[in-house]
Amino acid sequence: MLEKIILDGNLVANDIKEGLKERVVQLKSQGITPCLATVLVGNDPSSATYVKMKGNACARLGIDSRRIHLPETTTTEELIKTINDLNDDETVHGILLQHPVPSQIDERAAFEEISLDKDVDGVTSWGYGQTALGFGVYPSCTPAAILKIMEYYNIETKGKHAVVVGRSPILGKPVSALLLNKNATVTTCHSYTENLPKLVEQADIVIAAVGKPSFIKGDWLKTGAIVLDAGYNPGNIGDVEYESCFEKASAITPVPGGVGPVTISMLLKHTVDSAEKKLAQFV
Amino acid sequence: MLEKIILDGNLVANDIKEGLKERVVQLKSQGITPCLATVLVGNDPSSATYVKMKGNACARLGIDSRRIHLPETTTTEELIKTINDLNDDETVHGILLQHPVPSQIDERAAFEEISLDKDVDGVTSWGYGQTALGFGVYPSCTPAAILKIMEYYNIETKGKHAVVVGRSPILGKPVSALLLNKNATVTTCHSYTENLPKLVEQADIVIAAVGKPSFIKGDWLKTGAIVLDAGYNPGNIGDVEYESCFEKASAITPVPGGVGPVTISMLLKHTVDSAEKKLAQFV
Repeated sequence: MLEKIILDGNLVANDIKEGLKERVVQLKSQGITPCLATVLVGNDPSSATYVKMKGNACARLGIDSRRIHLPETTTTEELIKTINDLNDDETVHGILLQHPVPSQIDERAAFEEISLDKDVDGVTSWGYGQTALGFGVYPSCTPAAILKIMEYYNIETKGKHAVVVGRSPILGKPVSALLLNKNATVTTCHSYTENLPKLVEQADIVIAAVGKPSFIKGDWLKTGAIVLDAGYNPGNIGDVEYESCFEKASAITPVPGGVGPVTISMLLKHTVDSAEKKLAQFV
Repeated sequence: MLEKIILDGNLVANDIKEGLKERVVQLKSQGITPCLATVLVGNDPSSATYVKMKGNACARLGIDSRRIHLPETTTTEELIKTINDLNDDETVHGILLQHPVPSQIDERAAFEEISLDKDVDGVTSWGYGQTALGFGVYPSCTPAAILKIMEYYNIETKGKHAVVVGRSPILGKPVSALLLNKNATVTTCHSYTENLPKLVEQADIVIAAVGKPSFIKGDWLKTGAIVLDAGYNPGNIGDVEYESCFEKASAITPVPGGVGPVTISMLLKHTVDSAEKKLAQFV
């Protein structure tokens, strides 16, 4: 029988955070405190929770967080003004605009306004393009987390067939791009894909990024497939049907405790990276 | 027996150019002559030929071309200076830096310097990112040509499985992105892909973008597959083995006379688009 590996995201996240501690101390000793600005618009309770978690994660590492909460009725212009102020603020090293924003706002226009050097959440088209062409500095945090987990567990990507289920701008598309750059053969699937189970069955690596609870079934998988589940649906349920996929997979991320905690750690890492770049400009 | 269609690029190119003629006349009547600047560095004879072809195609439509030829010994800094001058020149609407440049030059750095609004050849990472996220203005010309040919011949992409062989920044990657945005399921293959024939065999649509003469064989194809060959190797040979692929395919581009002429037409179209945008700023 194959050895079965649970890809424990908390282990990976702790490893990343351990590596950041000393860097934060060093930065502070030179007069710079890394600072992540989080922008929350409106009253979505899940979004409020996410922003709070990110702020708390910053605090535990000694990273400042600037929490900006705008009302439900904010206009695109007002949001862009806020982002521009943060772009101009030399004490802010990263900007996170929490998705989703209220429907009257042009979210894409707001994302695009974030300065490339502060786009630590990897939402701008420019940052995406750089990532896809292989020289991006801050890829989207969830795709970066997925790659980090594979690196931590020595999962080979070269020549492997990765099937990505989902094509969102901050998850399916960039994780496809990162895997392609790591020499995987990549198939990107979505709601119009025909015969999805037959495609998933060919995958050495399955990335679930579809946003539907327990969507991917164990009997779709090739025996021994590696499964990374970026889904996080109400009730702490991932995009894969865990029990049946666990049976077939050789390695699988749990939900919770898989991709989620690593995503937050990547956000912290990018913020520290950005602060170090700022310091390098002074020296 | 299936009807077999030769996807005639000259027909598509002529259709595009017919549509541009009146637009060029209109622009000129308002005092603007669309202008494409071509930058050729060094003495590569193929590159010189390509640049000349593009200049001639401009001339036939009444589009100005500004041909800049820099010596083989040009540095990255000198090339960037030239590009910046063209960025600043209000009479220039598009900039094409002919690939490849001599090896001492950082080609990517030079591409990145081109203003987004003059990047009519779709080489910048920012333009690539916008294209991949679905709101790009000037996608790379060869990928745009491939999509245009499919549109002209009413080839459905939604739900179809497209297999792209190649992953270059101006061909394999952007054509994968465009097909994904047109609701195809997309598999991107490359030199590390294992069992390529088995993947190609699943394709409803095959995009050959690998740069190896007669690389893709007819017996790899599913009967009735649609084959678009972006290859153009010495001796006018494409990336697909034409005779054997012709037998299996339901539709196929010839080489020459397939993707090539449409690519040049897309470059002209983007230059005219850019000139019209410039005019709109004045009005």
